[in-house]
Amino acid sequence: MDKKDFKFKTQIRVRNYEVDWQGIVHNANYLLYCEIGRIEYLKHLGIKIDLSTMQSDSRVVLVRNEINYKSPAKFDEVLNIYTRIAKIGNTSFIFEGFLEEEKTQRLVADNVAYHVWLAPNSEEPMTVPNEFREKVKKFEELMKM
Amino acid sequence: MDKKDFKFKTQIRVRNYEVDWQGIVHNANYLLYCEIGRIEYLKHLGIKIDLSTMQSDSRVVLVRNEINYKSPAKFDEVLNIYTRIAKIGNTSFIFEGFLEEEKTQRLVADNVAYHVWLAPNSEEPMTVPNEFREKVKKFEELMKM
Amino acid sequence: MDKKDFKFKTQIRVRNYEVDWQGIVHNANYLLYCEIGRIEYLKHLGIKIDLSTMQSDSRVVLVRNEINYKSPAKFDEVLNIYTRIAKIGNTSFIFEGFLEEEKTQRLVADNVAYHVWLAPNSEEPMTVPNEFREKVKKFEELMKM
Amino acid sequence: MDKKDFKFKTQIRVRNYEVDWQGIVHNANYLLYCEIGRIEYLKHLGIKIDLSTMQSDSRVVLVRNEINYKSPAKFDEVLNIYTRIAKIGNTSFIFEGFLEEEKTQRLVADNVAYHVWLAPNSEEPMTVPNEFREKVKKFEELMKM
Repeated sequence: MDKKDFKFKTQIRVRNYEVDWQGIVHNANYLLYCEIGRIEYLKHLGIKIDLSTMQSDSRVVLVRNEINYKSPAKFDEVLNIYTRIAKIGNTSFIFEGFLEEEKTQRLVADNVAYHVWLAPNSEEPMTVPNEFREKVKKFEELMKM
Repeated sequence: MDKKDFKFKTQIRVRNYEVDWQGIVHNANYLLYCEIGRIEYLKHLGIKIDLSTMQSDSRVVLVRNEINYKSPAKFDEVLNIYTRIAKIGNTSFIFEGFLEEEKTQRLVADNVAYHVWLAPNSEEPMTVPNEFREKVKKFEELMKM
Repeated sequence: MDKKDFKFKTQIRVRNYEVDWQGIVHNANYLLYCEIGRIEYLKHLGIKIDLSTMQSDSRVVLVRNEINYKSPAKFDEVLNIYTRIAKIGNTSFIFEGFLEEEKTQRLVADNVAYHVWLAPNSEEPMTVPNEFREKVKKFEELMKM
Repeated sequence: MDKKDFKFKTQIRVRNYEVDWQGIVHNANYLLYCEIGRIEYLKHLGIKIDLSTMQSDSRVVLVRNEINYKSPAKFDEVLNIYTRIAKIGNTSFIFEGFLEEEKTQRLVADNVAYHVWLAPNSEEPMTVPNEFREKVKKFEELMKM
């Protein structure tokens, strides 16, 4: 992933209890950090879907996560979380994100998270709503979405 | 993944605090469950590497996780965690695992976890030790490893 | 707390990711274990209140926790969770619980958790329902409740 | 607890995955937030004990926690964590802390955490080191410590 493709950044600071017996952040926490990025991204764009809550008229589910661990983060480090929606398909969309240690700009981990839009009260995929598509397009200024 | 390829199974029961505001297990927990499977697998084979601890003479690091979420697990469900080492390369090996709800045999998630063996006090990969390779081979009865 | 006062026991096994950089269970997890005990206790008695969910006609809130840490638990140890309702007042009740390491019968921690019953859609305490009181009394065979 | 007795404050923002199925922060997380306060407090005073790590020449253990839950915190709320050492005894000391929601100044929870100083490689309490006592005294300007 190329940092210049990312227009949105948020930050967290590693908390003491997120660090395991090796003195480094436990691997499951990096996914949580990336999720924070996705939630802040949507909030920033004024998109009111909650990635982990049932919607009255539709809902979005996470169907796949890929994460590469590049270098461990440590207690008290500040991590920049870069997030973008890299692709919107017919019924799905893809978030990309990466974690960078603030001071050294060291790459900590990168993540690709695949989401699908489901129809109300159903397990069937539905077309990604236009309002969502337009808001993301406008923010990301991608022509091909 | 095909259940008949897996010779090792362990179990967990979903705890109340692992369930999020949607009433289902938060996505990061499935990775933790798969990690439990890997740790129990190595214990079962009598292999004394700790997947998340520095070793005196070498160490194993997790470099990549892939997880597909198939159906959410709920509070109090018992999950079977199937685990195997599917491939041992020169300096790396691959764990596969999947989570199945005990009663309905519903597939909950599947995971591929890539590990690399690092040389002592170094970030350089080293050849997977023979003892490890032999123990796994013997257990998995795989000819091509 | 005296073990012979406790009629209910459940068990958990310490998971690898619950252990902190000191190699022992992080202090916040003991509270979670005690909560597991309370939830299993209520389930065992056939009481359908969910300690952490809004009820249609009333709800129970945790207002205070006290916990004494006696000896740390370690990865893979099996802990017995003893739980009882020690007292039911007019609008409140008190859970007691303690954690004991299975093999050595070592006391790990003990906990007192204070709960209050709130009236529907309100922050006002209400009288503990008779059905709850009777079920607990019957199980605990306490005369003075 | 009286806010004007507290000279140290730090902050956290509630993360989405800290919220349970009731839409509010799970009770165990408030203890974690208070712990963040204690760690930041010690760092601020330049005291290099790690509350959860073995020390070469001595160590500090948490022996008791008391927490009162006053009002639930919700996703995205900013919490002020006020922390002080309220008392230093011969071999022990007491942290007090409380959580206040930033915007409304609503009291969320308060906590008292009892710590004991143990002698090197021992389970025996030892006298609180003078350096620690002096640094805290100086910061808290308490005469009676």
